Amino acid sequence: MSESQYSEFCERVREMSDLGYAGGMLSWDQETCMPKRGAQARAQALGSLAGLYHERMTDPRLVDLVEELAAAGTGDDAGTNVREVRRAQQRALRLPKDLVVELSRTQSLAHEAWVEARGSDDFGQFQPWLEKLLGLQIRVAEAVGYEGSVYNAFLDEFEPYARVEEMAPLLASLRQRLVPLVAAILEQDRKADPRFTREWDVARQEAFGRQVIGDLGFDWDAGRLDVSVHPFCGGTGPDDVRLTTRYQADELTSSLFGIIHETGHGLYEQGLPRDQYGLPVCESISLGIHESQSRMWENMVGRSRAFWEHQLPRLQSFFPDELAGVSVDEMYREVNRVEASMIRVEADEVTYNLHILLRFELEQGLVAGEIAVADLPGLWNERMQEYLGICPANDAEGVLQDIHWSSGLMGYFPTYALGNLYAAQLFVAARQDLGDLDAQFARGETARLLAWLREKVHSRGKRLTASELVQDITGRPLGIDDLMSYLEKKFGEIYSL
Amino acid sequence: MSESQYSEFCERVREMSDLGYAGGMLSWDQETCMPKRGAQARAQALGSLAGLYHERMTDPRLVDLVEELAAAGTGDDAGTNVREVRRAQQRALRLPKDLVVELSRTQSLAHEAWVEARGSDDFGQFQPWLEKLLGLQIRVAEAVGYEGSVYNAFLDEFEPYARVEEMAPLLASLRQRLVPLVAAILEQDRKADPRFTREWDVARQEAFGRQVIGDLGFDWDAGRLDVSVHPFCGGTGPDDVRLTTRYQADELTSSLFGIIHETGHGLYEQGLPRDQYGLPVCESISLGIHESQSRMWENMVGRSRAFWEHQLPRLQSFFPDELAGVSVDEMYREVNRVEASMIRVEADEVTYNLHILLRFELEQGLVAGEIAVADLPGLWNERMQEYLGICPANDAEGVLQDIHWSSGLMGYFPTYALGNLYAAQLFVAARQDLGDLDAQFARGETARLLAWLREKVHSRGKRLTASELVQDITGRPLGIDDLMSYLEKKFGEIYSL
Repeated sequence: MSESQYSEFCERVREMSDLGYAGGMLSWDQETCMPKRGAQARAQALGSLAGLYHERMTDPRLVDLVEELAAAGTGDDAGTNVREVRRAQQRALRLPKDLVVELSRTQSLAHEAWVEARGSDDFGQFQPWLEKLLGLQIRVAEAVGYEGSVYNAFLDEFEPYARVEEMAPLLASLRQRLVPLVAAILEQDRKADPRFTREWDVARQEAFGRQVIGDLGFDWDAGRLDVSVHPFCGGTGPDDVRLTTRYQADELTSSLFGIIHETGHGLYEQGLPRDQYGLPVCESISLGIHESQSRMWENMVGRSRAFWEHQLPRLQSFFPDELAGVSVDEMYREVNRVEASMIRVEADEVTYNLHILLRFELEQGLVAGEIAVADLPGLWNERMQEYLGICPANDAEGVLQDIHWSSGLMGYFPTYALGNLYAAQLFVAARQDLGDLDAQFARGETARLLAWLREKVHSRGKRLTASELVQDITGRPLGIDDLMSYLEKKFGEIYSL
Repeated sequence: MSESQYSEFCERVREMSDLGYAGGMLSWDQETCMPKRGAQARAQALGSLAGLYHERMTDPRLVDLVEELAAAGTGDDAGTNVREVRRAQQRALRLPKDLVVELSRTQSLAHEAWVEARGSDDFGQFQPWLEKLLGLQIRVAEAVGYEGSVYNAFLDEFEPYARVEEMAPLLASLRQRLVPLVAAILEQDRKADPRFTREWDVARQEAFGRQVIGDLGFDWDAGRLDVSVHPFCGGTGPDDVRLTTRYQADELTSSLFGIIHETGHGLYEQGLPRDQYGLPVCESISLGIHESQSRMWENMVGRSRAFWEHQLPRLQSFFPDELAGVSVDEMYREVNRVEASMIRVEADEVTYNLHILLRFELEQGLVAGEIAVADLPGLWNERMQEYLGICPANDAEGVLQDIHWSSGLMGYFPTYALGNLYAAQLFVAARQDLGDLDAQFARGETARLLAWLREKVHSRGKRLTASELVQDITGRPLGIDDLMSYLEKKFGEIYSL
């Protein structure tokens, strides 16, 4: 591998990465700042950026460089960078630029249509956009090709090297063990603590949330927090990470756990290897691994009893009257209340994966052409009834609740369930390495866990695949046992099962 | 001119415009949102975008298209678009891409260095960056070429078709008439009304400011207002206009007039011809014409007695105790208080142009190599003493106060003085066409003036040059008489000269 070839390769890849950077900022801005009438021009601009990115990726000079570098071969970071660019390039070479641009513009406009449709609870407004988007995405899948199910072409964008043929049985076995646990818990019919049903000043919620973000080790000089309809972690790389949340005056911890979740994503981004900035090695491995970070901080840390030993008095200083007399155990039970509920992002740890399985199944039907877009609201509601025994009162709290499909993120949902599995399995390994994590959390010390994640996961960037990483850290392939044992033990105690 | 050639031309130009769009949003974000550590990657990304823009602009296919379309000739919008792209292309063809990228990255980093230097009042921190930037800009000027003074190469980016050989005498004659007026006013030594020296709640300042922006006809669905160190109007075109301001608790109207000023810019942007979006016709004519809009709204409208007849009671409803008993005449005098002051953006209408002349003169010396960057602070302070009889206590309120040089905007300042001249001359024409504007303003009616500006200026986009526009609307070339008569009459009355 010649030095000068590799450096020309890096220069070209970094330039493309900067187009992605611009796209990332425009997308963040679209969710947080952009005025209403800006949508059309935004879609146009994002489309042009996607088109230029595609053009640069498929530039014959870069194709030659990649092939020559790949043939020369190497096992270090350069090898990873070449391998990953080649992967993306092979995909891009099969796609006409027009389709890339049209898909990007349609995503951006479909997203705006979804915002409107959700606001006015009118699936019909969104339906033609989703149909159009899905049609374009299937054209993309057919163009890039896939082995096995067409769904693999979708999955590949979010969870590289994963296959639905392996994932579906894993998630099905998860469901088999989850359903009786959920049933046993819901049978207890435990009532909510009425002290938490009241108004919670939003400004104080925000102040506490910001304090927690800092406590967990997020670098405020390399990131920020804003408000958006749908919480997310965006931005452009380790030095500029954008978290968002939304506040509800009638919920004390809904925004908080969203914040901790996005902080988990943000800590991963801030820990990526900066010396490889703009190259694949400085990117996250997959969305599943990304989600393992957010879910570990949200659930295994944020919803632990030990976390609240430290944080409850701090939260009480923001809400002294409202939380007077609430004990750590009561708070712990409150933030771990299991219920059949409508909204995925507010679901507890136990029912959450059923929300995902519902979406995963509908997605597979959609892309296989077995389900029509028009039938989605009905099927959604049927499945909610079947899995959780409840039915959305309207589409805004049903099929329209999530941003994903409107943004072209079909095939993304199962990475959430994978994230829960990865998180549980990694957390078992962390406990083995770090001793009594609960005692640390109870003292407000999460720094050792963060350092461990930095070393084992974040700083390695994209050097390993998701399966390699899990095997390397835990010595085992991904399974469902760690997650299920964790859930059965924790909720078995809370619900005295 | 063939239909298909022109449509390929438009597609390519719109794609480039989208790169500019992304750059515009990244720059806005850099001023309003970006966390500190994001600066390096931002500079990198802006550099890549500038480089790609340059590459597309100088693409041989676009060069051929432009030459063929230009040779075919036409007098309509297509002709304007081809003419303006050709102008930019001729310039770009003379610039190596490396220089474009380096200039962009240096601007972005120099800007961050300026923010730091200004914050810590340390010109030394900024000096090497300004030296580097100036060196790069002179290389650019030499590469693109110029007639007459090298300063024309700088000016051309901001005030197309203008020449320093014509502008300098015009501004010198302005100075000759301004100096005795300033002296006569300052001789009165009129004391400030002590009722305005107090704390003014910032949240109420902001609420009133937002109300005024709406009153003046700004479309909130196509724009927003944020806070930045240096107020500006940015964004990406008619449907997404970003105004910024800053608030000072010890100043009632400093932020307000900044807001009205930026709203003037914003109204221009929102009024550009949307059907030509992404093409030169949908761009403003020049910074001088842009500034004529901001200055007209800020001064001829916002600092008129009639405006305050309507707005004072409204402002009093935000500050009922603080402004109890203040009359319209007192308010009018307060917002037109003339004083020798340090900060350009807070200067009154009369002394303002002297601030500009100082910068204009230093800039000419810098680019001609007659002044060294290291000597700027000293020369700045000397000149302030000479023109206004005061000397900055430190560089933060002296040579470091403005954003422009740090962002590569050398040659920009004189467009502010031109803006004042254009504004005065256009306003005389508006008065002739629209009858008693004062009576309208006193009733809170500014809509007829806006409609007139929409028709005469905004909706015409870049179809005319600045001189053509002024000639067309006022029947005369640009002069200093209208501005000076306006100032002499208004301040003659206020100061009983």
